[in-house]
Amino acid sequence: MYAQKQISKHLRLIPLGGLGEVGRNMMVLEYQKDVIIIDMGLKMPGEELPGIDYIIPNISYLKGKNVLGIIITHGHYDHIGAIPYFIDKIGVKTPFFTGGLTRGIIIKRQEDFKHLPKLNITTVKDGSKIRLGRFEVEFFHQNHSIADNFGLIIRTPVGNIVHTSDFKFDDNPVNDSPTNFAKLKRIGEQKILLLLSDSTGAEIEGHSLSEKTIMENLEEIFKKSKGRIIAATFGSLINRIQQIITLSEKYGRKVTVNGYSMKTNVEICQNLGHIKANKGTLIQSKNVADYPDSQITVLCTGAQGEEEATLMRIINHEHPFLNLKKGDTMIFSSSVIPGNERSVQMLKDDILRQGAKIFHYKMMDIHAGGHAHQEELKEMIRIMKPKFFMPIHGQYSMQISHIELAQEEGMLEENTIVPENGNIIYLEPNKIFVSKKEKAPAGPVMVDGLGVGDVGEIVLKDRQTLAKDGMFVIIAIVDRQTGKIKTSPDIISRGFVYLRESKELLHQTRKKVVEIISKTVESEGAVNWNHTKEDVRRKIGKFLFTKTKRKPVILPVIIEV
Amino acid sequence: MYAQKQISKHLRLIPLGGLGEVGRNMMVLEYQKDVIIIDMGLKMPGEELPGIDYIIPNISYLKGKNVLGIIITHGHYDHIGAIPYFIDKIGVKTPFFTGGLTRGIIIKRQEDFKHLPKLNITTVKDGSKIRLGRFEVEFFHQNHSIADNFGLIIRTPVGNIVHTSDFKFDDNPVNDSPTNFAKLKRIGEQKILLLLSDSTGAEIEGHSLSEKTIMENLEEIFKKSKGRIIAATFGSLINRIQQIITLSEKYGRKVTVNGYSMKTNVEICQNLGHIKANKGTLIQSKNVADYPDSQITVLCTGAQGEEEATLMRIINHEHPFLNLKKGDTMIFSSSVIPGNERSVQMLKDDILRQGAKIFHYKMMDIHAGGHAHQEELKEMIRIMKPKFFMPIHGQYSMQISHIELAQEEGMLEENTIVPENGNIIYLEPNKIFVSKKEKAPAGPVMVDGLGVGDVGEIVLKDRQTLAKDGMFVIIAIVDRQTGKIKTSPDIISRGFVYLRESKELLHQTRKKVVEIISKTVESEGAVNWNHTKEDVRRKIGKFLFTKTKRKPVILPVIIEV
Repeated sequence: MYAQKQISKHLRLIPLGGLGEVGRNMMVLEYQKDVIIIDMGLKMPGEELPGIDYIIPNISYLKGKNVLGIIITHGHYDHIGAIPYFIDKIGVKTPFFTGGLTRGIIIKRQEDFKHLPKLNITTVKDGSKIRLGRFEVEFFHQNHSIADNFGLIIRTPVGNIVHTSDFKFDDNPVNDSPTNFAKLKRIGEQKILLLLSDSTGAEIEGHSLSEKTIMENLEEIFKKSKGRIIAATFGSLINRIQQIITLSEKYGRKVTVNGYSMKTNVEICQNLGHIKANKGTLIQSKNVADYPDSQITVLCTGAQGEEEATLMRIINHEHPFLNLKKGDTMIFSSSVIPGNERSVQMLKDDILRQGAKIFHYKMMDIHAGGHAHQEELKEMIRIMKPKFFMPIHGQYSMQISHIELAQEEGMLEENTIVPENGNIIYLEPNKIFVSKKEKAPAGPVMVDGLGVGDVGEIVLKDRQTLAKDGMFVIIAIVDRQTGKIKTSPDIISRGFVYLRESKELLHQTRKKVVEIISKTVESEGAVNWNHTKEDVRRKIGKFLFTKTKRKPVILPVIIEV
Repeated sequence: MYAQKQISKHLRLIPLGGLGEVGRNMMVLEYQKDVIIIDMGLKMPGEELPGIDYIIPNISYLKGKNVLGIIITHGHYDHIGAIPYFIDKIGVKTPFFTGGLTRGIIIKRQEDFKHLPKLNITTVKDGSKIRLGRFEVEFFHQNHSIADNFGLIIRTPVGNIVHTSDFKFDDNPVNDSPTNFAKLKRIGEQKILLLLSDSTGAEIEGHSLSEKTIMENLEEIFKKSKGRIIAATFGSLINRIQQIITLSEKYGRKVTVNGYSMKTNVEICQNLGHIKANKGTLIQSKNVADYPDSQITVLCTGAQGEEEATLMRIINHEHPFLNLKKGDTMIFSSSVIPGNERSVQMLKDDILRQGAKIFHYKMMDIHAGGHAHQEELKEMIRIMKPKFFMPIHGQYSMQISHIELAQEEGMLEENTIVPENGNIIYLEPNKIFVSKKEKAPAGPVMVDGLGVGDVGEIVLKDRQTLAKDGMFVIIAIVDRQTGKIKTSPDIISRGFVYLRESKELLHQTRKKVVEIISKTVESEGAVNWNHTKEDVRRKIGKFLFTKTKRKPVILPVIIEV
């Protein structure tokens, strides 16, 4: 397999996801026949994709390729979430390399996909080196909002590549070692040909908040609160969960962890020593009533206003043990994901109406994301002194902002590159460029229930139209011999008008349908029912629009008996 | 009508919209048989209300009431938008009182409702006083983002009420006189029993930006830009439109105004002298090509990423004359309405991909809303020194924040009140309280095409379900005599699976339908087709879920022939 020993002068990078978007990160590196993959993430769909569960990368480019290994930088779903959908296509034996916590989270997730065989995962640590064909990958510790997050030094025949993973610099992190700048500098001295760096925070000025500051602010809330504390955050924000547990112990509170993803993550982390809690601190929600309110902390998911999350049930008084009451203090320790602003506002209003107090990240610094802001990003560029620079992980505007930062640090425009998903990027010792001829398929692949990629433009468009004005099915039975309508047409409609209050409209519509069909039958010799159906669709559509200014999906059915 | 001369000790305030929400502002004041109304606004629906055009207040409380007059504070749609839906219910002769610009905008809007008779609108100015039964209403100038905005002093038999309208304090407004603090102070000296004040900005620290600052920052962009300037803002943000026109004139640019709402507003404002432009400054978009790029400014709507707006067509190269190109400078001079973050991000990315430059309000101060921030709100309370205080216009969290500001200004909690839409508030010289017994209907009334209020829970729920997993209609023809299925059932489906690629699934489903129906017919004497349909719905629903993990709306139709 490694027979050809001649040195090719270029390496190819193919981002299959995560560029021009936040989520579904996936990068392919290819040197001659050797292929390695970094991350396999998913992305949550927006409102414009109704019914879709996730979006994952398109991996048809990898067909027939010799994938030597898959490297997973850390355990967030935008880096691991697509694994179950890809693994049988890439080859179940392909080895994974990742940190211990990430491994735990991946294995737990695989339980939801019982038909899939066991994965082959090797655990790595800060300083681990692995060889995959002509690639050597060395892992280095990077701070983020979850432990066991690794940046990568990828040594290749054309030069050294640094991939930052998601990262931020933090001198005082929680349950994690601080950023080791001395080590980063040593990496920077190894002649970095190309730096791939996280752009998520590239539009935000300054330096990201230290977890220490957040801890101090959270402590202020703990000091003041007399009733229960209900803290909502992401299930994946392990650092914050640890902080809440630590503060609860300090202030004599028991902690109940709620919400499937949070519960699962806490379990995995506890088993691997990434979350520390004294014996007896964590209690079941059913035992909350055994303690006074001042000794209770509720940790839960749902800070985005998700309808099915625990927080919603607590607020709507649908939880068996934890319903919101006056005197509760609510902490929102997470940012609002774009698109969720409205539901978070509703949530806040509902909480306030019930007389609880709210602290959220806009009122005080009780949340930090896991991503470097502008000052840190510039520092990373200064440390790595790369010859070439390529911003990864983020919307196009973030990538552009990141390029501007690189230019502020003295990089020439021609040494930077802003590719998009599916671009094929050639890296040579003295050149980096995007191929103008080749492109890998990189459109979004939609996961909906058991279907992967089967929901396309047409189905989505239908869903959007149905959502807007509903549907209107007309069923007419005609006599095969005479072509005459046998009984008054049946009408089924949903989402258009309230049928019980629209009897007159339905009556008129039925009459019109009979007219349209009768006319075709009279005027034509042999009846083309497809034409008739088209006629019904068009004319009834027009009629309903005149009457209602709505455009339901009209589906005429003509049945000959 | 004014026969009973005895003095009632209370007045009633009934907010029908605008409390606990942003939009559809409407307040009813009632003293004995005399009723006046302040504002009649609409609200734009969120994604959770698919297909809905607007939400308006429920006015069934007003049935049979003696409405003496309708006061409109200013010309924004959240204050005027519901007028066409209410006027024939309240009585076409009921007089309106409002500023000249607002009158122009209302009359222009009425053109879209040709069936409605002409409105009876009296124009008022700063200082105008009108008497409506036992109410005397005096109008006073308030700064906002549109001219002719008036606060109200309402003199009533129980005491004086001040309604701030939407407002901000501005010493250097555009095309408008600065805030007249001396006059406000004189009002405050008149013993204000109750202050109703705008809460929209109550969660934002500090003082709102002056339009002067914005002007200076915009000028910086004009100075630097060598190509065309494309400025997107709200069609209703008349101040900003004026600023862009003024700067364009200063820097030798012609201005083309695009987008229906903006064009209409500019026309109305020009006619009334509220927008000033030199002769020849405004040009048609088709004439843009006659000038070099450095002499062109494009003003347009669509800064929220609305699909049908001009900006989208400019960016997607669907505009006959104005398509985006490298070298263009794009100014977003408007905030992002909650819920639109995603589409605005897409817009920004698309613009950057085409090589244009972007300036938006997060990068520099080139936008201010029309609403007072915390420092101004406190100042208003200090000036008015009201006995009672009630925050209006805003989400519940904003109202609560406003109450906290009032308390910082020394108001006692018992003298403040946070009512909700539909509450009936009793105001007496020494007391304010919400009735515990009475309530006015105040749920959202949805406007969808020609239907007002006919779309309810059921239709909406259907639309949401249809959007998620589509629909699945099963049509089976059975023999009336034998109860046997005559031909293979027809299936129509949209938004569920792509039918052409799901032949096997459809085949199995048909077989299952035949089985289910045959079984009922065999097992029962007289067939209850409703039971059979329910059976088909349930079993096919389950079957499809097992196969796809999706839950389309299943509609079985059984037709006897």
